[in-house]
Amino acid sequence: MNVDFHSSALAESITALRERNPLVQCLTNHVVMNFTANVLYAVGASPAMCDNPEEAAGFATQVASGVLVNNGTPSSEQIQGMYLASAAAVAAGKPWVLDPVAAGGLPWRTAEVKKMMDANPATILRGNASEILGFLGGTSGRGVEATDSTTDAVDAAHELARRYHCVVAVSGPVDMITDGDELVKLSNGSAMLTQVTGVGCALGAVMAGYAAVTSPLNAAIAATSHMNIAAENAASVARGPGSFAVELLDALARLSAEQAADRVKIS
Amino acid sequence: MNVDFHSSALAESITALRERNPLVQCLTNHVVMNFTANVLYAVGASPAMCDNPEEAAGFATQVASGVLVNNGTPSSEQIQGMYLASAAAVAAGKPWVLDPVAAGGLPWRTAEVKKMMDANPATILRGNASEILGFLGGTSGRGVEATDSTTDAVDAAHELARRYHCVVAVSGPVDMITDGDELVKLSNGSAMLTQVTGVGCALGAVMAGYAAVTSPLNAAIAATSHMNIAAENAASVARGPGSFAVELLDALARLSAEQAADRVKIS
Amino acid sequence: MNVDFHSSALAESITALRERNPLVQCLTNHVVMNFTANVLYAVGASPAMCDNPEEAAGFATQVASGVLVNNGTPSSEQIQGMYLASAAAVAAGKPWVLDPVAAGGLPWRTAEVKKMMDANPATILRGNASEILGFLGGTSGRGVEATDSTTDAVDAAHELARRYHCVVAVSGPVDMITDGDELVKLSNGSAMLTQVTGVGCALGAVMAGYAAVTSPLNAAIAATSHMNIAAENAASVARGPGSFAVELLDALARLSAEQAADRVKIS
Repeated sequence: MNVDFHSSALAESITALRERNPLVQCLTNHVVMNFTANVLYAVGASPAMCDNPEEAAGFATQVASGVLVNNGTPSSEQIQGMYLASAAAVAAGKPWVLDPVAAGGLPWRTAEVKKMMDANPATILRGNASEILGFLGGTSGRGVEATDSTTDAVDAAHELARRYHCVVAVSGPVDMITDGDELVKLSNGSAMLTQVTGVGCALGAVMAGYAAVTSPLNAAIAATSHMNIAAENAASVARGPGSFAVELLDALARLSAEQAADRVKIS
Repeated sequence: MNVDFHSSALAESITALRERNPLVQCLTNHVVMNFTANVLYAVGASPAMCDNPEEAAGFATQVASGVLVNNGTPSSEQIQGMYLASAAAVAAGKPWVLDPVAAGGLPWRTAEVKKMMDANPATILRGNASEILGFLGGTSGRGVEATDSTTDAVDAAHELARRYHCVVAVSGPVDMITDGDELVKLSNGSAMLTQVTGVGCALGAVMAGYAAVTSPLNAAIAATSHMNIAAENAASVARGPGSFAVELLDALARLSAEQAADRVKIS
Repeated sequence: MNVDFHSSALAESITALRERNPLVQCLTNHVVMNFTANVLYAVGASPAMCDNPEEAAGFATQVASGVLVNNGTPSSEQIQGMYLASAAAVAAGKPWVLDPVAAGGLPWRTAEVKKMMDANPATILRGNASEILGFLGGTSGRGVEATDSTTDAVDAAHELARRYHCVVAVSGPVDMITDGDELVKLSNGSAMLTQVTGVGCALGAVMAGYAAVTSPLNAAIAATSHMNIAAENAASVARGPGSFAVELLDALARLSAEQAADRVKIS
């Protein structure tokens, strides 16, 4: 583990994101579409929520810089769009991120996202510990909330990373990120992050943005660190979950590459 | 009417909600999904917006603590999910809340929610005066907004409560809640509540959360009081509807059981 | 160009909107539904997101004061609802606004909104420069973001306004509004407006509200000015994009007719 290397890559990634302003195509759940779009603008990327079967593939091929698939509120039409967009992204050599919401806990959606991943492996697979364990084949807790610790999910993350030749990012109090070889642990963040809906979902979109400007491993680290260090700043001034969400958007936009590199807790 | 009993039950309900953190499955409209999820976190519950026909029943049976059905933006798929989830909730002995948005004003959706209610009566039926009157068979004003007073709706609320053996909660400047026998009037709140979209919708979700930890009557009272007393706190510092919504989430999270019991205006 | 006339009409329009509180039926994208509803409340109108094929026409005919169609996240069901609502609005003599999101860039949706417009021309066609050029037949940039200047779109706006006998509003750093005869340029606003998702989408809904209380040309001018002058006020106190969105809602609600008439930069 070369901590200086990762800190330096983090600063470079943040600068690159803001300079290149990647357009992230989000096929995501209805709960978080608005927040995800605003988070993407705040970090320095741009959103486009193009998720219908008529347009999803063409948009991924011709317009998007990266693609996010998050199956939090899947409809039959949107699931079709997700297959088409993920296949088009792989064919076009563009990164795509899979956030398999409630994998393991809900059989139908778990089967659908596994089929997507088997057909066209994602660049980054992102979830909480229960979702990563659930994706591999265990069963998990209560819907979208993690009931397992990230440490429990490390073996599953390694196995999935090697199987799909992808990066796996497990979010939690300590974030675990692996490419199947190296394991990076990130320890920034705030307990407030779990009191606002959609932060994890938005994080997946931010990873897709970073993956358009740097390597998949750097992208997962940069997105996680950008979100978690901004969350520390936001939590220091928030008076509750409502003001935290507002301050988080402001903090995402204000975080400098230098502050991120100074503050990142990596091991 | 035993006011002390209700105040004491309110404090106990708030404490119980935060200790037990019920998971509320929300089949709700697209306008308010994000706000509803954040309100549930703020009060001390958790959200899961599982509303597709493939998963809605299984989630209600196996995972949810309570279910909210709100037909504000119904699609054909979501309506199917609502039937399945409400039936599964009743079969599993779990509470479900029906918020019949624009009942009376729009015939198609009114017929659909009546069929749900006839097949598997909700634990709590919640709406504004126009919706409660419209659900019973009158016709009402302009979509989602109340054009009748809560007093006008008291008879309709009693009749519906007795017909369905449920609690009926009519929201307005004075909130009227009845189990068909007792009538509870609550007078907290703020005019700002009508200037932010989705507060009433979120209130239905909060009732589903409280109904998982206390009786249906206590649940309707506790949810209404939690929202309305927090709204008074938020309105005292807000500078307009944008800051009011933010302050409301903060105030929902900060309201103590003791403050709620002290401040509730019940008769 | 009679600047005094337009300033005076602006003040009268704002007063009329708040007195008459028009109900705007929004068939709009899932990203911005919540923000749009809150913007409508803040300016003094009311929202109803009735967009399903079963109810869209009846609501437009019987309940709505004006209709917004915004195809940002079209599903097959919603597209049907849009045809029905726009046809019903024209038949009932009610104004409707078309916001052809990503027109030109995405062939399927472009064809659908052109068919709507050909069958039942909108009262106001609103978009950014790339969308207006794309609607006329050019191809445009990257999805929802303008990559052309409003000046480039002036000829296209004139042509469309004359073809459809409608008002065309091109948003950008300078907003261009034409009825095919007169060209009005508005220069208020803030760069922050592009850092929050859905402001342009909400602007379309506000135009539908104003079109229910004044002429189409006045409506486009009043909606644009109300939004952009409020944005200046919000930007003066915001600390980033999160607080800007909150302050914008507060500022929309607080802007007086007199302040708007004093501050509008029109030519």
